[in-house]
Amino acid sequence: MKPFIHDDFMLGSKSARRLYHEFAEPMPIIDYHCHLDPGKLASNYRFRNVTEAWLEGDHYKWRAMRANGIEERLISGDGEDREKFRAWARTVPFTLRNPLYHWTHMELARVFGIDDRLLDGETADRIFDECNEILASKDFGARSIVEKFNVELVCTTDDPVDSLEHHISWQKRGDTPFALLPAWRPDRALAVGRPEVFGPWTAELAGITGIRIRSFEDMLEALEARHAFFHGAGCRLSDHGLEYIPSADWTDIRVRSILKRALEGGAVSEAESIEYGSALLHRLSVMDHEKGWTQQFHVGAFRNVNSKMFDSLGPDTGYDSVGDFTHGVPMARFFDRLELEDRLAKTVLYNINPADNALFATMAGNFQKGPAPGKMQFGGAWWFLDQKDGIEAQMNTLSNMGLLSRFIGMTTDSRSFLSFPRHEYFRRVLCGMLGADMENGLIPQDFDLAGRMVRDICYNNACVYFDFPLQGPKGPTRRSTG
Amino acid sequence: MKPFIHDDFMLGSKSARRLYHEFAEPMPIIDYHCHLDPGKLASNYRFRNVTEAWLEGDHYKWRAMRANGIEERLISGDGEDREKFRAWARTVPFTLRNPLYHWTHMELARVFGIDDRLLDGETADRIFDECNEILASKDFGARSIVEKFNVELVCTTDDPVDSLEHHISWQKRGDTPFALLPAWRPDRALAVGRPEVFGPWTAELAGITGIRIRSFEDMLEALEARHAFFHGAGCRLSDHGLEYIPSADWTDIRVRSILKRALEGGAVSEAESIEYGSALLHRLSVMDHEKGWTQQFHVGAFRNVNSKMFDSLGPDTGYDSVGDFTHGVPMARFFDRLELEDRLAKTVLYNINPADNALFATMAGNFQKGPAPGKMQFGGAWWFLDQKDGIEAQMNTLSNMGLLSRFIGMTTDSRSFLSFPRHEYFRRVLCGMLGADMENGLIPQDFDLAGRMVRDICYNNACVYFDFPLQGPKGPTRRSTG
Amino acid sequence: MKPFIHDDFMLGSKSARRLYHEFAEPMPIIDYHCHLDPGKLASNYRFRNVTEAWLEGDHYKWRAMRANGIEERLISGDGEDREKFRAWARTVPFTLRNPLYHWTHMELARVFGIDDRLLDGETADRIFDECNEILASKDFGARSIVEKFNVELVCTTDDPVDSLEHHISWQKRGDTPFALLPAWRPDRALAVGRPEVFGPWTAELAGITGIRIRSFEDMLEALEARHAFFHGAGCRLSDHGLEYIPSADWTDIRVRSILKRALEGGAVSEAESIEYGSALLHRLSVMDHEKGWTQQFHVGAFRNVNSKMFDSLGPDTGYDSVGDFTHGVPMARFFDRLELEDRLAKTVLYNINPADNALFATMAGNFQKGPAPGKMQFGGAWWFLDQKDGIEAQMNTLSNMGLLSRFIGMTTDSRSFLSFPRHEYFRRVLCGMLGADMENGLIPQDFDLAGRMVRDICYNNACVYFDFPLQGPKGPTRRSTG
Repeated sequence: MKPFIHDDFMLGSKSARRLYHEFAEPMPIIDYHCHLDPGKLASNYRFRNVTEAWLEGDHYKWRAMRANGIEERLISGDGEDREKFRAWARTVPFTLRNPLYHWTHMELARVFGIDDRLLDGETADRIFDECNEILASKDFGARSIVEKFNVELVCTTDDPVDSLEHHISWQKRGDTPFALLPAWRPDRALAVGRPEVFGPWTAELAGITGIRIRSFEDMLEALEARHAFFHGAGCRLSDHGLEYIPSADWTDIRVRSILKRALEGGAVSEAESIEYGSALLHRLSVMDHEKGWTQQFHVGAFRNVNSKMFDSLGPDTGYDSVGDFTHGVPMARFFDRLELEDRLAKTVLYNINPADNALFATMAGNFQKGPAPGKMQFGGAWWFLDQKDGIEAQMNTLSNMGLLSRFIGMTTDSRSFLSFPRHEYFRRVLCGMLGADMENGLIPQDFDLAGRMVRDICYNNACVYFDFPLQGPKGPTRRSTG
Repeated sequence: MKPFIHDDFMLGSKSARRLYHEFAEPMPIIDYHCHLDPGKLASNYRFRNVTEAWLEGDHYKWRAMRANGIEERLISGDGEDREKFRAWARTVPFTLRNPLYHWTHMELARVFGIDDRLLDGETADRIFDECNEILASKDFGARSIVEKFNVELVCTTDDPVDSLEHHISWQKRGDTPFALLPAWRPDRALAVGRPEVFGPWTAELAGITGIRIRSFEDMLEALEARHAFFHGAGCRLSDHGLEYIPSADWTDIRVRSILKRALEGGAVSEAESIEYGSALLHRLSVMDHEKGWTQQFHVGAFRNVNSKMFDSLGPDTGYDSVGDFTHGVPMARFFDRLELEDRLAKTVLYNINPADNALFATMAGNFQKGPAPGKMQFGGAWWFLDQKDGIEAQMNTLSNMGLLSRFIGMTTDSRSFLSFPRHEYFRRVLCGMLGADMENGLIPQDFDLAGRMVRDICYNNACVYFDFPLQGPKGPTRRSTG
Repeated sequence: MKPFIHDDFMLGSKSARRLYHEFAEPMPIIDYHCHLDPGKLASNYRFRNVTEAWLEGDHYKWRAMRANGIEERLISGDGEDREKFRAWARTVPFTLRNPLYHWTHMELARVFGIDDRLLDGETADRIFDECNEILASKDFGARSIVEKFNVELVCTTDDPVDSLEHHISWQKRGDTPFALLPAWRPDRALAVGRPEVFGPWTAELAGITGIRIRSFEDMLEALEARHAFFHGAGCRLSDHGLEYIPSADWTDIRVRSILKRALEGGAVSEAESIEYGSALLHRLSVMDHEKGWTQQFHVGAFRNVNSKMFDSLGPDTGYDSVGDFTHGVPMARFFDRLELEDRLAKTVLYNINPADNALFATMAGNFQKGPAPGKMQFGGAWWFLDQKDGIEAQMNTLSNMGLLSRFIGMTTDSRSFLSFPRHEYFRRVLCGMLGADMENGLIPQDFDLAGRMVRDICYNNACVYFDFPLQGPKGPTRRSTG
């Protein structure tokens, strides 16, 4: 029997197969947004076993296991590694039609070369042993795994107070297999309403900059210092995780007073928090514009909904969901203010609720402006939407309401070093879609035209759009589309 | 010519046909949520004709007839039965692509054996006569009709003040062809803002419990008495019909004072009504948890929109629609409070606006917890969504954002004794979807794997999940999954 | 090679091809909603070249060009016409999968007979020259172009203060190739919050009616006079472009005082503006009912989001997007009030956010009432949704939640005289959908049934529904469906 993950997996037409194998497959990867640990990349971290490499901290799998009735001890708890792996393996057959089913078997096939079996309770033990053997072999550290996927560049996600030591030492070395750049994620700078987060973070910021932070001016000075430092370390991207984009009116006086109170550990109301966030996010956005960066907004997730589990496990443990926040007016105000000041940076807008696809795609269209093609990007399908249906819906909306041709493509957005097959997954979906269009006469039977589009979306667009400081031998270079 | 409703109706691939005929078709039916009249089941009620059996009170058909320009006299009015049937028959061709077109012809085929003609103005009279003849024959009472569909269990929908006499007498008999259980629907307990509803209902509650209701404590005592009584009658499910789940903050003092005013027939503001509802729904939910019940929430319908027709015909007459209420924050608060107290019951969440699919599916995911697989259910496509597209969208969202394998499947949610072919309809859609996936290589060509999933969704999951008190010879038992 | 736009473009099945060529293609066109300039129709306006005819004022193309990084000079600016055409042509390949790619090549094929090449940077100059030559030939004025498309009737969109001189003179002539009627669009009457718009408009209204407008009564008198005048000129349709339908409570005293202030150029708050709008829209709606008109609501667009470009280019220049306003409650109140008074006119509801499809479709269903079939219409896919996916989604929702058979079909809703192939586009999508249904057994293999539906949606339904004053030789007449 043909393996489940075979050469033409998800490529349902002859045109799709040609587009994929001829145009998409050879393109290198620019993973411009992920949550990999730069320290583990730098040290080529060795995993103790596949449970650590695959299950630890993977809240997608954790959610599935909980929905399958697995006890928490075998998910986030102190269960033994083999037992945890078995619990996951027993869950896998029940993930049929969930992207985890595809990802799991793609990762087994592409990382471990196991494509002759499906993972389940029966096959668990042997696959556990085989994976562990492979992980123990030469060339299976964290960096080596990434290296197998024709990756040219990885951008991690970093707090302004991060030292970036790993990025910097990486860049100094001559032998790195791909570029490693930081991205600026100042979420905690906006957390004036959560003293337990904001206080320690401000202290760290003061520590690393040597600036005593007593006022909004101090705060901006410190953030600008770190922003410049990040720029020096090759950062060209910021990122914000928000329920919605805050854009209330503010006055400097009130912003100062809110910050002052927060610095003293005092209570800040939700309205004040939004006012402060509106002011600060505007300034952060201006910094991005000044430096020619791209700002990313990951908008609409409703996080930490289960407070009992949040108290026990903390954030990013599988208790987040899709929100129904109102986005139109606040988002428009935010971008309009910046555009009026001629300080609107390149922007990528990611939504988490698929019901907002049309809103986000058309909102981006309101602020398009040459000479950069696709200055405002409707970002790739993210998190809960990172599956075939979600990817297709995002690309269909972008196609219908914008220019798919100018799309900068997919990212792993992952914490896992094994996630790089998601680029292959995305490319298969893309080529499947265009191939079907071709066979249905919806686009011309012109492989130059569609093939160029594929190459651009998979690689070239991101390469040109971000203008990373490491073009050429140490980083990405636009590939011929001839 | 092949009949329109034939053996392979909607089964577009060989795999779909095998999945349906081998795995889905033989499974019995657990209809765990419907609005059948238990009295008519108990008495094996005889319909005077097909107009009564098929059109009376069927607000889906009424809406379609109104949209087709039929005068109200022939819909809800005093028109003659044959005339009303003709008016419906004339409308049928205009329902092409509406689920009514499928349901109508499935019900004609499966209940009356009429599958050689389509219903329209031409065929109306003969079909009217044929159906009436069949209805007049032996074995065509309300119970007998249900009996033909391999039904093992039916849960009706009952008000706390209902006597449940029919359920109780049914259960005492030895010869019933399927189990009949009540479900607890305390909507009127929350209606403090509608004195014309709340006053009489409270009087009934007092009457049936012998508890004089003068305070919130009295109300809870009376409801708990009825809840226990329902439990004794085999009830294992509650159900709530809500625009959104109320979860405001409340104080006991204010709740008491709101109820006091309502009991005196005084005016209660909308905000007060929500506050009262938040408090009471929380307590009702705790009762469900204590008894091991499953709570259902049918959320988001915007009812009785046409107040002129509401005044003339009352509720459930075809004047309801899909709302755009905000759900995320209130729903999260509601479940989070219960989870913090370790009192969150098994829950099924049904949404009416398809734009909320992702929100509801992922909200359920936030509160999954072993050992019950699929403790939190994203409920089957309901009401306006109970059609091929809606069913597929619900299952696709659940697949992508949860575990379809753990889905407890479909219900008729119907007032009509002729609606049981909707289970067949759902199963055909399910198998059509999985069959297509198989042929497109999206799931493995493994009939054990997919067939088990089909059996589980059609029957086994509901059987295990609800843990009805009548397992075994008098009720459902999990079927081998081979 | 077969041309991209060929006879069976988008018709993916044999049944689709038969439905299209036999039933859809021969039907004439009633374009009951568009933004054509009646003066240019009346004068059979000659375009100086294809840039004027095709690009000037076409904000769909402008948005695409901006997203493609084209400089504004070549979009809305003072660039030379050939240069602008080249910039558009260079953009076209990047619109692959956007409806512009289809429309562009359909318009080249159907208007200019150019179907042997795709438009791009290479082919730009020759196509520019060829189109210009054709435009310079006899029979290529604005009216002559429309005439080529078997159009029977066009309704423009007109302000109450418009003189309708072109419509009136058109109607007096005996030789017009199609009927030309006005439609009433009183958006500016609601603009009390924008003195720069409201002041001049009120002055115009006073001028044309001779009524000095000092009170709400004066305003209504003037609007009624114009409404009657429009009726005399054959108007049978109103239209409103709104973020959401205002339906606040109002008092006559407050409405009068708001208007008084607005007439004096004073500031009107947003809440006051809504209150005024609620009162006036209700009255406008009553006028429509009294005259037997159909009222259209184009709801949900979020306009002029980029205020910098709005200041420089004005409205309708490509800076609008899809909003996420709340519609359910206000829309229900609006229609319910009218229905309570027995003054609800025939209504077409268009939404711009596809996430609102189910809400709009079912809201229409709440107010259906005979004897007119489909009195309340869920309107055709509009603006951002006017593409294959959007058209299909609108028709699928209408099918599932209402009666597709009673749908009055598509309009161009366009400012361009070259847009009439959009009717062909819609019909191909419709037939593609029904043909697929037929081949998948979802509807009977009955070409009488499905063919009648096609004819009705393409033409007959609109013909009957609007009951235009020009039935017969000078206007549309229902076509046999035999």
